[in-house]
Order: sequence, then C-alpha cells, then structure tokens
Amino acid sequence: MTSIDMTKIRHALSVTRADDFAQWYQEVISEAEMAEESGVRGCMVIKPWGYGIWERIQHLMDTRIKAAGVQNCYFPLFIPLSYFAKEAEHVDGFAKEMAVVTHHRLIQDGKGGLIPDPEAKLEEPLIVRPTSETVIGQAMSRWIQSWRDLPLLTNQWANVVRWEMRTRMFLRTSEFLWQEGHTAHANRDDAMEETLRALEMYRAHAEEDLAMPVVAGEKPENERFPGAVATYSIEAMMQDGKALQAGTSHYLGTGFAESANIRYQDKEGAQQLCHTTSWGVSTRLIGGVIMTHGDDDGLRVPPRIAPHQIVIIPMLREDDGDEALLEYCGEMVDMFRQLSAFGEPIRILLDKRAGKATQKRWAWVKKGVPLILEVGGRDMASDQVSMIRRDQLWTEEGKVRFEPHTRMGFTSQAPSLLEKIQAALHAEATQRRDAQIHRGVSDFAGLEAFFSVDQRYPGWVEVVWSKPTGAALEAVVTKLKALKLTIRNTPMGGEPVSGTCLFTGEPAVERIYVARAY
Amino acid sequence: MTSIDMTKIRHALSVTRADDFAQWYQEVISEAEMAEESGVRGCMVIKPWGYGIWERIQHLMDTRIKAAGVQNCYFPLFIPLSYFAKEAEHVDGFAKEMAVVTHHRLIQDGKGGLIPDPEAKLEEPLIVRPTSETVIGQAMSRWIQSWRDLPLLTNQWANVVRWEMRTRMFLRTSEFLWQEGHTAHANRDDAMEETLRALEMYRAHAEEDLAMPVVAGEKPENERFPGAVATYSIEAMMQDGKALQAGTSHYLGTGFAESANIRYQDKEGAQQLCHTTSWGVSTRLIGGVIMTHGDDDGLRVPPRIAPHQIVIIPMLREDDGDEALLEYCGEMVDMFRQLSAFGEPIRILLDKRAGKATQKRWAWVKKGVPLILEVGGRDMASDQVSMIRRDQLWTEEGKVRFEPHTRMGFTSQAPSLLEKIQAALHAEATQRRDAQIHRGVSDFAGLEAFFSVDQRYPGWVEVVWSKPTGAALEAVVTKLKALKLTIRNTPMGGEPVSGTCLFTGEPAVERIYVARAY
Repeated sequence: MTSIDMTKIRHALSVTRADDFAQWYQEVISEAEMAEESGVRGCMVIKPWGYGIWERIQHLMDTRIKAAGVQNCYFPLFIPLSYFAKEAEHVDGFAKEMAVVTHHRLIQDGKGGLIPDPEAKLEEPLIVRPTSETVIGQAMSRWIQSWRDLPLLTNQWANVVRWEMRTRMFLRTSEFLWQEGHTAHANRDDAMEETLRALEMYRAHAEEDLAMPVVAGEKPENERFPGAVATYSIEAMMQDGKALQAGTSHYLGTGFAESANIRYQDKEGAQQLCHTTSWGVSTRLIGGVIMTHGDDDGLRVPPRIAPHQIVIIPMLREDDGDEALLEYCGEMVDMFRQLSAFGEPIRILLDKRAGKATQKRWAWVKKGVPLILEVGGRDMASDQVSMIRRDQLWTEEGKVRFEPHTRMGFTSQAPSLLEKIQAALHAEATQRRDAQIHRGVSDFAGLEAFFSVDQRYPGWVEVVWSKPTGAALEAVVTKLKALKLTIRNTPMGGEPVSGTCLFTGEPAVERIYVARAY
Repeated sequence: MTSIDMTKIRHALSVTRADDFAQWYQEVISEAEMAEESGVRGCMVIKPWGYGIWERIQHLMDTRIKAAGVQNCYFPLFIPLSYFAKEAEHVDGFAKEMAVVTHHRLIQDGKGGLIPDPEAKLEEPLIVRPTSETVIGQAMSRWIQSWRDLPLLTNQWANVVRWEMRTRMFLRTSEFLWQEGHTAHANRDDAMEETLRALEMYRAHAEEDLAMPVVAGEKPENERFPGAVATYSIEAMMQDGKALQAGTSHYLGTGFAESANIRYQDKEGAQQLCHTTSWGVSTRLIGGVIMTHGDDDGLRVPPRIAPHQIVIIPMLREDDGDEALLEYCGEMVDMFRQLSAFGEPIRILLDKRAGKATQKRWAWVKKGVPLILEVGGRDMASDQVSMIRRDQLWTEEGKVRFEPHTRMGFTSQAPSLLEKIQAALHAEATQRRDAQIHRGVSDFAGLEAFFSVDQRYPGWVEVVWSKPTGAALEAVVTKLKALKLTIRNTPMGGEPVSGTCLFTGEPAVERIYVARAY
C-alpha cells in the first residue's frame, strides 16, 4: 500500500503489529497514555487521553441519540437480587458472573484491618448492574399508561459490571462505560423501525465519526441476545483480520414487556403489550479505533474524535527567546478561535510544558494527534511552522516528514486538512478491510484452508448459506467453533444470492461473514 | 414582595411552601417529573427532566473545569478493602457505611431463587467507591516523578455510594452523581491557589449558572473534611431559611501525599512531598435549585440550565386546521435555529404530543420552563403567539398572565428575555437571602430566641466570633448542636471585624454564619 521502505524506519513503538498484534495493542495503550491497570482486578484507569477520546465519542453519539428524540435518564447502580431470579429461570444464556453486594458497613477487626460488619448484612443482596434492562423495564411499566405515552424512548450513559476472568483493556473489562437505549412501542413495525434506526445510527457513527468501516447486519439465531427476537450488529475488521462486534441493536418483541408488565391502553381502550428494543455501544469502541487506525508509531486518532486535533510544540530553549516564541505560537492559537472543522470549533493545544521538543513530538505522535506543529526560532523568523501530518509520518527515506507552511497558510488550510485526514483514515481502513474479505470459497475445506495459514485468521470469509435453524444451525456453529470461528452477521440490503450453502448443501438464501472475533 | 393577592390563586401544587416545605419539595420533584423512588433502597431514578438539568450543570461546570486546565479521567468503581484500612486507623471521621461486594457469581438455590455462589467468594472484599480519593492518590504516586509533572490536575465525573439510612431525593441518596477534582502541587501556595480557584469556580457556577446566591467561605475546624488542613464551601440559603452546603474545596496539605506516597524530584534533585487538593459538587445542586427557585406552582428553572428554555404548545383540535398550525409553529422553531442566548444555541421544543393544551401548559409550568408559548388558530391568523413568563405567572387578579407578541417580536426578544429571567431569579433569591440574614444578635440568648420562633429556623444569623479551637470550639459546637444549629462558614474577603465573641466573650476576629443545615 506504500512505497516507503519500512525497514529503514526506527518506529516509536518497540513491538510492531506484524510481530505481535496483541502485544502491540497493549503498547499503544500504554505509550499513548490511554489507560492502565488499576490494581483492582479487571478494572482499568482511563487516563486523560483515553477518556478524552471517550468524551468525544459520547458527545457525538449523544447528539445523534438526542436528534432521534431519545431522552437520557439515570437508573440505580444496584439491582435487587430477586429481579434476576425470573430471568435466570427463563433465559438460557443468563450470565451469572456479577458483583454481589452483601453488606453495607465495615468494622474494625481488632487486628488493624477492616471486615464487613456481620450486623450490617443486607436482607436481600444487591447486584451491581450488568445492564439496567430489568429496572428500566419496571420504570416503563410505571410510565406507560396509554398509546399517548408511546413511543417511550430512553437512554442511559452509565458504568456496568460483568465479572470477567480474562480481561483486555477497552475490549473486555469487568467494569466498562456504555450507553444503553431502551424503547417501547405500540407495535412490531414501530419497534423494528427503531431497532434499525439505532443500527444505522451506530453504522454512521462508526464510519463518519470513528472513520471505522463496519458491516451492519443481522446476527444469526445462535448469537441473538438472550430473549431477543432479532439482534443486529455492526462488525468492524481489525488490522489483524479479526472481527470486532462494535455495537448491537435488539428487537425484543413482547417478551420483555410481558415479564416487566409493560402495557398500554390503545385508542379503542384495550390493553396491549408493548414491543420493546434495546441497543448499546461501549468503551469497546476505543479498542476498535486503536486496532483500526493504530500503526507502528502508536495511535492515529481520527480528527473528529481527537481530544486535540492540532498540537503546537514550541522549541523552547529556556532562554530569553522563549517569550517571543510563545507569543508567536499563542497568536496562532488565537487565530484558531474563529475556525471550525466538522461544524465544531477546532481543538488546538499549545504545549508549553517544560521538556525537550523532540520528546514531546514523539509523545504526541504516539497519542496520534492528527496535526503536530513544531515551531522554532528560525520558523518564527520566516513566519513559518513545520507541520507533521500523523497519517503521513514518514518520507520515503524513512525520515519524519516535515512540511513547511506559512503561519497563515497553515491556519487557513487546517480545517480542510483535518477533513482530509478523517477521509484518508477511513479510506485506508476500508481498502484494507475490503482486501481482507475473502470470497470464492465454495466448500468447508476451502474455509478451513483460508484460516489455517499461520494460525493468523487473516481476514473474513464471505459465503452464502441456507440459514439453517435449530439443530442444523448448531451443527454449523460447532464445526466453526472447532476452528475458533463464528458467523458475524448477514449484511443489510445485500443483493439476492444464488448458489449452494457451504455447510448444508442446500440452496443459499443470504450472505454471511465468517471470522475469528474478539 | 409582590402585590398579587395570592389567596385568589389556585396553585398547580397541592402543598404550598408555607404549609409544609418538606412535603412541597417532594411534590415539586414528583410533579415536575424530575426523579422517583426506584424500588432500590436509597437510590432514585433520575427522570428526563431531572437528568436534563444535571446534563446542563455538568456541561457548564465541565467547561469551567477544562478552562482551568484540569483533565478528566475515569477510575474504577471498586476499591479493595485494604485501601481503607490505613485511613480507618488514622482518620477519626472515617465513614464506614459503604456497599461491600463479597461475591462475583450467583447460583440457583434449587428453590427457584438465586443466591451468591459460596464458591465465588472474593478473597478480598471490594468496596463500591464512596469517593475515589485513595485510588486517585495511588495513580498520582505513579504519574508524578519530577517537578515537570506538576501541577497534576485531574477530575472525575462518576457515581459514588455512601450507605444512608435516611434519604431525601437529590439531597441525600445512597448513590449519587458528582465530580471530584484531585490535584497535586509542588508547594503550599500553589495548592492553596488551586483550592481557592475551585471555590471561586463553584461560587461563579452557583451564582451565574444556577442563579443561586451563595456565600463562599472557610468551614470551621470541626467541619473540616477528615484529614484536610482547610475546607472551604459555598453555602446557599433555601427558601425555608436553612442552609445547604452546595460544594466544597479542600486543601489537604501533605498528609494525603504522605499516605499515598505522592512525591516529586525538585529542580535540585531532592525528593519532596506534594501538596494536594480535592473539590466536588454533586446532584445535590439540583436540590438547591429546587429549594431556591421553586414556587407553589412547581419548579422554576434558570434559563442557563433549562433543558428546554422555550416550549411551544400548539392548541391542536384534531382537525384539518392542525397541519397549518404545526407548520406555523415549526417555522418559528426554524427561526430560532440561528439564535443564541448566553453564547449557546437556544433550546426550544415544539410539543406536538397528543393531549389537551391546558394539561400540557400546566405540565411545563410545573417543570419550570422559562418561556411557554401557546399558539391557537386565532394567534396564527394575526401572526401572534401568547407567552407565559414562568417567573411572572400570575396577574394581580390571580389569572395566568398571557402576554401577546407578534411571532417576529417574540423571536427577536427571546434571547434578552431569557437573560432577564436568569437575572430576575438571581435577584429575587439574593433579595430573599439577604432579608433572611439576621444581624445584631449580641448574645447567645438572642441567637436562641431568633431560631426558636415556631421551630422554623427562619434564616441565618451573622455573628462575629473569636475563632476558638480545640475544647473551646467543641463547647460552642455542642451548644449549637442542642439547637440543631451549625456554623456554616466564614465568608471570604470580609471586612475586618470588631466586638466581642458571642460564645467566648473574647475579642472577635472574624464573621461567621450560624444556621440550621440540610
């Protein structure tokens, strides 16, 4: 994809993607100062750069959510144990790995330590919410009386906890941050429209805001959310060829309404069950951004979600010249106050901290700031700046590519440059994704062969299948599982298919993607 | 304060402030649909109107926080029990009412219920954070190496849990939402400057954003945050004359740095302890807004924090005329897209829901929307709208005050009207607060007499005192406690005082406020 001789380059990270993708991922997170282990099992500390990206994601997603007329609420962190009993009985896939609160007080143990006070044992244990599904269902049953109350469109931004044995930062942590949309409707059509609206919202957010190409589609029956009638997802391809489920949207039919007693009086005065939906994305998106856009020099943040889109590094010498240099750079920041990119004010930082400019440059390169400016005395003298475009970091000779600009020239170009970088990251990721989708596999042996090379799962395989159900589907799932593979989804709005199902030999009815997933 | 004969008015709430302030408070929350009981002890559901106000508070406060160079992070919900042991040993005021997680899995009990799985008992219990002080301290000790890393300015928006026996929505709940700022500095002066910057930020936010007058000042020694060297607060007066501590800022000296090992290498190469601060506000601010601005018709939301600043109610008749009316109103919403108030786009809602216009009017009155427009066919015919200004709801005859405006006239006036309402609410609250500060009390009997009338604690008493410490202070505190009174704070930047201390008879050194507090 590039004519640069990469062997000449001394990259900012110690591990390359090609060497060890999992290790590279950890190094990006640590070198870009996005997050770190907290000392609490399975929970991470999200550092300013990682949290800044999450704030941008929240802002852009929340704007989309509100534009659809959905209202934010906040529900309790704790859920009484009994709320789960019914679900556990009826739902096969009910996950029981949850944090259980049993006491509400500590006392001194007399040996310098503390213990839960036996006198303060809760009558009923409380569960730290793994989702707020049950409490929101109960609230809906209180809030909805008549057809006039529908649709009821609610969303919550919150932390949730699912006890995980093997964790990986951003991708799978015991505590994570997410939004969960929960809506209730008068009938199937309205609920299905909302389910697909949320799916499309996620697709647009991933593609436009995160520059992350995704396939929006329906999950196969075996991958449905427990209790859902239909589950949809957006699936992104990571640079190692694996799939990341980056968001889901569920049409829940009337089953949840029945168990939570969510009913309304219709225009004729009859009691009806609501049709409900739920949909969510989480801090997992940040893992997707890293594995979509990161390179061997660290993260590359798409400009729309970059906490700082431009960083100015003045080459301070700790002498009398510093003041003039800082003023020169400060004037530039002032010029930017009037400028927008993507319809928002440009986010620019003047990095005045003490320390060597070169060190600062590499810190911002690893954090993936789209545009980095270095400004020294000579630049100032000629009214210039030296620009690094993070997505075009290296020259063909393996040197850092500095592009000289006049101060005015850079300022006026910056908005369109940021838009170009956003587009370039998306194009690069799309091209790579498309190149790594393998077609033309006509039998299971071909599928197996594709994924067996070096145990690297080098992409997705697109096949047509007969959409088996029940035991026939189970057989397919088991066969794939032996290869550590799963069916990702059936893309929305695909062309009609022909041919024979790879798994059953029956006539194919739709297209699916098979991949190894995170 | 007004010449309206209030007895003629049939108010929207069933309880008035004068009748039963506590009951009135609950009714505002319920009738304005701000929050409700969740079924989980001590935890509330924050409904869209309440959460929308919190989002506005968050947005305005977060802008102030970021403008000061503070960076947001996110720390784990759970804190290992052992982190608290040291604190419990050393800190007298250590609160032990916390939610304790002891298990990480549920199993079926064989009787249709679920129980914590005895096999999944945690080796070390986890505490649901009552504050993130300890984990943030540990992070600081990892993140700070040299003087170049200082100041370290961090903030977290999060939910926290403190087990409460008696709860009151927004004012005291077991789970609440807040922000906690934690900063580390090279020396006392820098840390004190930050402590007072945060205090001033809170004062400005309360006065400018919430239109809530406050006294910023230092808490007496006995009211200091456990372990703090100095604690500052903003104190607001509620309409019943009680005080609400609405935000605190602490200078922690080097004590926290010592226990968390937060050290830096200074320019000379020597290891030094950091000086730290912490500061926070919570959803309690919403309780303050209700008790500052609410009236007998519900809430009145200051325009800066109103989720909708203007609501248009079309008087729909469910006939053919509705379409034209909705179009007329929709054009008005479009006109507002270009308009700003307080430097932000105006937030306007066209309430298209089915239902009677009068019912909708009262729903929005109770929610406290600053400007409510009713638009019927006749208004449309004359290119008019009928405006209700929520802070001037009644005419002298006890009727709802409708003000006719041309559509254009209203649109062009709206920004300044919103600014006037913001100012009017602030002025009204300030006038009432000032009128309820009682001066001229010269002995303890006078103090006692002021607060004894009807058991109503009708305001604050401002006195001068000698600022006793230790046992002498304890004596004062005990005496006040018997009257359910506390010392609120010593206002910043007050004039020098003279006279004799009410409590000790010694020469007075500063001014304090004495009040009953929430």
